[in-house]
Amino acid sequence: MRILGIDPGTATTGYGIIEAEGSWVKVGDYGLISTSPAQPLPLRLASLYEQVLSLIHKEKPSCLAVEEIFFNRNTRTAMAVGQARGVIILAAIHAGLEIAEYTPLEVKQAVTGYGRAPKYQVQKMVQAILNLPQFPAPDDAADALAVALCHAAHQGLRGLGLDLV
Amino acid sequence: MRILGIDPGTATTGYGIIEAEGSWVKVGDYGLISTSPAQPLPLRLASLYEQVLSLIHKEKPSCLAVEEIFFNRNTRTAMAVGQARGVIILAAIHAGLEIAEYTPLEVKQAVTGYGRAPKYQVQKMVQAILNLPQFPAPDDAADALAVALCHAAHQGLRGLGLDLV
Repeated sequence: MRILGIDPGTATTGYGIIEAEGSWVKVGDYGLISTSPAQPLPLRLASLYEQVLSLIHKEKPSCLAVEEIFFNRNTRTAMAVGQARGVIILAAIHAGLEIAEYTPLEVKQAVTGYGRAPKYQVQKMVQAILNLPQFPAPDDAADALAVALCHAAHQGLRGLGLDLV
Repeated sequence: MRILGIDPGTATTGYGIIEAEGSWVKVGDYGLISTSPAQPLPLRLASLYEQVLSLIHKEKPSCLAVEEIFFNRNTRTAMAVGQARGVIILAAIHAGLEIAEYTPLEVKQAVTGYGRAPKYQVQKMVQAILNLPQFPAPDDAADALAVALCHAAHQGLRGLGLDLV
């Protein structure tokens, strides 16, 4: 099963592909999708949609895994991330993918075994599980890999080094 | 010039069509687009996108006018409205429309001549300008007509009964 994990944003969106079958998991491409701050918002949203569609057509995942995001403070940021998230989910629906949403707590729980693990520990575990030569960076791409791993874990794929509850 | 005004939301999205040429303005169809709370969010966003596209194909506006929304309190609501707004703007871009964004202050200023006018007064003016037999309802549809009128005013269309600054 190929899973596309995404961490949404208007300026930069992290993505990560993992392949998970039976008892193994393998990392695919991961990185950032970005849009130009010089463009007006509608064009940035259209560009984000096209880039996500292209990535799906190239990588052929069967599922999009994305975090349900909760904000405590900045409603302006929430609005901007919401717009990006809506467009990304739409691209995945249009490409025929299943969509799976997880809370930050579920992602941390699945990857580290502890729902309140600090960001650094999540990234450390992403590196260990996927056997990455380097600490996964940038942050947004590491977060995208983490939510993809969470989805693999929830599919009942065992032996990934994931602590499941 | 046919203008589609939209007031975005995941559950209900208000829309309003106006036709503005030279010194006159005429109301077209207005009302609500809704999606079922029984459906998962990705399908609701896909349904919203399809309904906006259908509306555009039926009504053939050349422009989408939409409010820039600022929230003071609820980040959860901001996120949800952001997702809907992103999908609506994308549908308009895909249909080849121009997109115009206005702040709530600009909308109130254009429609009532006063940037801090209460909601009721905005709706009263929408009714008067468009010569509606009844008070425009529901609220979301009235707000959609108001932002469409704001765009007409900003296009330099005079004699609409709009107080322009």
